[in-house]
Amino acid sequence: MINVSIIGANGYTGLELLNILAAHKEAAVKHAVSVGNAGTLITDMYPALLAYRGARFEPLDIDLIAKDSELVFSCLPHAASAEVCKKLYERGVKIIDLSADFRYDDLAVYEKTYNVTHPCPELLERSVYGLPELYCEKIKAASIVGNPGCYTTCSILPLYPLVKENAVDADDIIIDAKSGTSGAGKKAEVSGLFAEVNENFKAYAVATHRHTSEIEQEISKAAKKAAAISFTPHLLPITRGILSTIHLKLKNKLVKEDIFELYDKYYKNEPFVIIDKTPPSINSVKYGNYIRIGFVVDERLNRLIVISCLDNLIKGASGQAVQNMNIMFGIDETEGLKGLPRHL
Amino acid sequence: MINVSIIGANGYTGLELLNILAAHKEAAVKHAVSVGNAGTLITDMYPALLAYRGARFEPLDIDLIAKDSELVFSCLPHAASAEVCKKLYERGVKIIDLSADFRYDDLAVYEKTYNVTHPCPELLERSVYGLPELYCEKIKAASIVGNPGCYTTCSILPLYPLVKENAVDADDIIIDAKSGTSGAGKKAEVSGLFAEVNENFKAYAVATHRHTSEIEQEISKAAKKAAAISFTPHLLPITRGILSTIHLKLKNKLVKEDIFELYDKYYKNEPFVIIDKTPPSINSVKYGNYIRIGFVVDERLNRLIVISCLDNLIKGASGQAVQNMNIMFGIDETEGLKGLPRHL
Amino acid sequence: MINVSIIGANGYTGLELLNILAAHKEAAVKHAVSVGNAGTLITDMYPALLAYRGARFEPLDIDLIAKDSELVFSCLPHAASAEVCKKLYERGVKIIDLSADFRYDDLAVYEKTYNVTHPCPELLERSVYGLPELYCEKIKAASIVGNPGCYTTCSILPLYPLVKENAVDADDIIIDAKSGTSGAGKKAEVSGLFAEVNENFKAYAVATHRHTSEIEQEISKAAKKAAAISFTPHLLPITRGILSTIHLKLKNKLVKEDIFELYDKYYKNEPFVIIDKTPPSINSVKYGNYIRIGFVVDERLNRLIVISCLDNLIKGASGQAVQNMNIMFGIDETEGLKGLPRHL
Amino acid sequence: MINVSIIGANGYTGLELLNILAAHKEAAVKHAVSVGNAGTLITDMYPALLAYRGARFEPLDIDLIAKDSELVFSCLPHAASAEVCKKLYERGVKIIDLSADFRYDDLAVYEKTYNVTHPCPELLERSVYGLPELYCEKIKAASIVGNPGCYTTCSILPLYPLVKENAVDADDIIIDAKSGTSGAGKKAEVSGLFAEVNENFKAYAVATHRHTSEIEQEISKAAKKAAAISFTPHLLPITRGILSTIHLKLKNKLVKEDIFELYDKYYKNEPFVIIDKTPPSINSVKYGNYIRIGFVVDERLNRLIVISCLDNLIKGASGQAVQNMNIMFGIDETEGLKGLPRHL
Repeated sequence: MINVSIIGANGYTGLELLNILAAHKEAAVKHAVSVGNAGTLITDMYPALLAYRGARFEPLDIDLIAKDSELVFSCLPHAASAEVCKKLYERGVKIIDLSADFRYDDLAVYEKTYNVTHPCPELLERSVYGLPELYCEKIKAASIVGNPGCYTTCSILPLYPLVKENAVDADDIIIDAKSGTSGAGKKAEVSGLFAEVNENFKAYAVATHRHTSEIEQEISKAAKKAAAISFTPHLLPITRGILSTIHLKLKNKLVKEDIFELYDKYYKNEPFVIIDKTPPSINSVKYGNYIRIGFVVDERLNRLIVISCLDNLIKGASGQAVQNMNIMFGIDETEGLKGLPRHL
Repeated sequence: MINVSIIGANGYTGLELLNILAAHKEAAVKHAVSVGNAGTLITDMYPALLAYRGARFEPLDIDLIAKDSELVFSCLPHAASAEVCKKLYERGVKIIDLSADFRYDDLAVYEKTYNVTHPCPELLERSVYGLPELYCEKIKAASIVGNPGCYTTCSILPLYPLVKENAVDADDIIIDAKSGTSGAGKKAEVSGLFAEVNENFKAYAVATHRHTSEIEQEISKAAKKAAAISFTPHLLPITRGILSTIHLKLKNKLVKEDIFELYDKYYKNEPFVIIDKTPPSINSVKYGNYIRIGFVVDERLNRLIVISCLDNLIKGASGQAVQNMNIMFGIDETEGLKGLPRHL
Repeated sequence: MINVSIIGANGYTGLELLNILAAHKEAAVKHAVSVGNAGTLITDMYPALLAYRGARFEPLDIDLIAKDSELVFSCLPHAASAEVCKKLYERGVKIIDLSADFRYDDLAVYEKTYNVTHPCPELLERSVYGLPELYCEKIKAASIVGNPGCYTTCSILPLYPLVKENAVDADDIIIDAKSGTSGAGKKAEVSGLFAEVNENFKAYAVATHRHTSEIEQEISKAAKKAAAISFTPHLLPITRGILSTIHLKLKNKLVKEDIFELYDKYYKNEPFVIIDKTPPSINSVKYGNYIRIGFVVDERLNRLIVISCLDNLIKGASGQAVQNMNIMFGIDETEGLKGLPRHL
Repeated sequence: MINVSIIGANGYTGLELLNILAAHKEAAVKHAVSVGNAGTLITDMYPALLAYRGARFEPLDIDLIAKDSELVFSCLPHAASAEVCKKLYERGVKIIDLSADFRYDDLAVYEKTYNVTHPCPELLERSVYGLPELYCEKIKAASIVGNPGCYTTCSILPLYPLVKENAVDADDIIIDAKSGTSGAGKKAEVSGLFAEVNENFKAYAVATHRHTSEIEQEISKAAKKAAAISFTPHLLPITRGILSTIHLKLKNKLVKEDIFELYDKYYKNEPFVIIDKTPPSINSVKYGNYIRIGFVVDERLNRLIVISCLDNLIKGASGQAVQNMNIMFGIDETEGLKGLPRHL
């Protein structure tokens, strides 16, 4: 049994970690930290979390957490997260960080993208990018894992094989992404109110979204040159789920079966990647740890339209974090993550 | 042309007033005041308000507003509203107040219900309860109108004739009310976030909601004795609309036609009250200034179930306020309010 | 391992059974029957049901199903269900029927309520009402279980102890119930379209809903006299969940703690009944097999307002059916049903 | 006063026409035809349509309609519509057809796209494409107008000036469009049920949607060569509204102000086209007859991302049809269409 703690446990990724870990057979939650809610019963904030009846959110006591935990999930905001992770790392705790602080190969790109000075660049160097389908071996050996974001997971996994195999033009990639509102977290802002989001739809951060540089980092490695990604996110009036429509130019005449084979080569043994024969919809992934990838070859225009989707709180955040934990500790990769998506 | 101003114009009742008044033929908005947003273009906050392109929210300048306005709509919170209304009243401006400050006959009931000291009880005495279907003549002559709330309008209008005519037991009235989220206003609170409201439903303020005393005030007058109202509000995951299910005991054997006649007696000439043959639904009232009332006589149990509904932002707030303005200024009562409800 | 089959597997209760049983450790689905969709891949209709990749909906072959199954879940409509159940019962298969066909003590009440002739009244006599919290011992020994409906479970469990202990007046029970749209099943009707349900809310079947007689059957037994239930259902614009607001008159002065003790006496050992200190909301039960019951004592009016909620597809249908299966076959009652509700 | 009739009045575009025309000062609805619902009170189907109390849907009586109507709006499906329109045209009635039957310049493209034989190609030749911002003069003189679809209006208006002025590459146009569910009409299909659409999002008809050829027709004319449009529609879980994200390559280095000037040149006098400084959202257009167009110049990639949106039932269907009527009959183009969009 692995003892884990969660810092920033009151937000939506924390909630989802608590939910997943409640049924995990090889991990136990020792501390659920929420500085702003220390002392509050977990079930007073989230009555659904019946497995935690009697337990309370706790203050941030680094030494206590380090003493009791082999692994910490950090759900803090960027920069704040690295500061805490550093202290825990120094006390010998393994880290899975859900912020952007340990996702970048290049310190300068991180600092430019997030407009902060990294609190511990020396740890950034030791960290591993926690996308299990690409970096499983490195994750096994890692002490610090930077858990990818929701948009990035939903973008990199469908693009990686296509670019790596030179099937599409890496200079001309358009990602038109749509995310449910839980992706914005649990912030008390007017823009997140039901009345503002409901019956509405909009693009935001057009051509400036921070996840662009994270996607370009990984796709450039696949392309072995600088990839140029045009990334346009939108806000969907749903709670969970991301769907990305990726518009690509085929380099050669390829047919449906060619693309299947290409994906199959990379993902056929991956338990959480499903290649679909028709474009998948969000009700095929919500509440599950899966990413689904479908596509249409438009022979008329020699284009490829790829549709990928996942549950932003699970495969796009907390489920992937648990998947990383499983890999780091030699547990079956699917433990705690076997729940099927819910059509309804 | 009547010159009007709106104080607290940035909230949802202010938004709705701005929308209605943009098409009103006999009223013009001179100042839209929002202390917290003074200087902001109205269309930057609400791009839909195209009629106000170029206009800005303004700071609260009592003298300027008094000089320029024959009437002020106050959308401020209770207590704060009365303080401002007092100053405007003293400068000769007529007032329609959308807060609770001028709705009560009895100062003590107001102060107990809202747990504040009324800033100007002398004005409370001069104010008129702005329910046009009951107090039209008084509103004509009023200088200060306390505009009823959404739950209260949706409760009092269906109950009044039944109680007045002694058809139902005034000691045994159960109002099970359900409101859309715009009724909670535009407050940046976690409880109002899309992710918290969507796919959810709950009761709140059970047996303690403030509107109970306002409903009891009016129904007691109809009953000529103290009415006892059990009022239970719920939060619906929709933006607009209130539906109240009112559970009543019939005093005598009455059939469907009897109840129709009874309502007809009171409301047949009212342009905004519609008595339906079947229970109405919210998509028959949203975006209109109507209240619809339907009912079922349960002969098996000698009960009457009344279903009433309205758009909380229109007949439950800003539309009713404009209806009151029309009456106060001798304009056709329906001016600016002729828009049909929207099925979709 | 118990071999089970599902008839009418393509509807929403069938979908939910397939989902639950995919993770059940002691039951295996042998046949998923859908006459109208025989031959279709289960994952073509429900891509989320990944555990069934390769499996198809099958035609109704009574002998084959009887040969392969120890238990059948029937998700057919009433009357049609009993006809099929009869044939399976005669072949020695145990039955859990999700229709109304085996829920009634009194044939005449069933036939009047559903306006049909019961196809096999002799089996109705042998059937057990599948509300585990009340009839656990009988269910253990049953061969045919009539699985209660969603509204009835959400009504009977909160009312039973109160009436049984004579705490409330059984002649004056008002149930104001609100259900998500999955309760209406998967019928292609205009009234169920997104555009008709979204941003809408309405009452339906006022004073005439069929579940009234089922609730009265059970509450009359508790009251040892004929109970009179005024039942008013409403349609919520959400997919899952029922919330009932039950308006009651207290017979004596009781305080909060008294009601707790009363519920505790009946339900303290029930794994799926949770008594809450504050009124529960639907986001504390959706996706779980729990019923939550909260209440407010209104001392001013000597009334008791009880709020109960559950997921209509789980505790209100398929989860309860699996709970019944577990009891019938001596499996841990919670097997397959341990998933926590989802706040989001 | 123009006498008009509506054929296929029971669907959602018919509903919207009835709503708009109820307040139109120069047009009166003589007959609302619905073959399947003839005899039904309009308010029994749509209680919100209070202006039509007492009126009924009527059967299709061509001679009666021709006698009483100067103009007919046809809301029938393609092919069926042209057959009826032909008969009315022969009787001297002007036609605005909301189907695809009179939208095409090239008969062959229509017949290939819709896989039907056109019932009256001779009328297709005489018809005018009813996009008022491009074809106002022709519409003035037209007897038959083919009213554009929702996706096409939302695509052509933002693209036309850019292509016409050679600012973007007409060979590389990607339209990623998202529509609310009312666009699918009022068909009783499982795929349209609330439970299927809610909390879901998906692409459909990828690379094969029929509106592609209609968009290409108009953009090719602007480009003076064959334009290649990659069109990917998606289904949003909202009732009203379309938002298109259009991904373009700039031919030259252009900055924000250049694009503004370009749009200004074409649309500055258009009452229903609004060029926004920031990407517009659906809550800036729903319930209004406006199209809003915003954009972001991505200097890094020399790309232009254009975001356009409109209410699919109004500017995308019935509002535009009334705008066409106004033009055809010399009425103020904005009559009946002055209602502001609704933020909530």
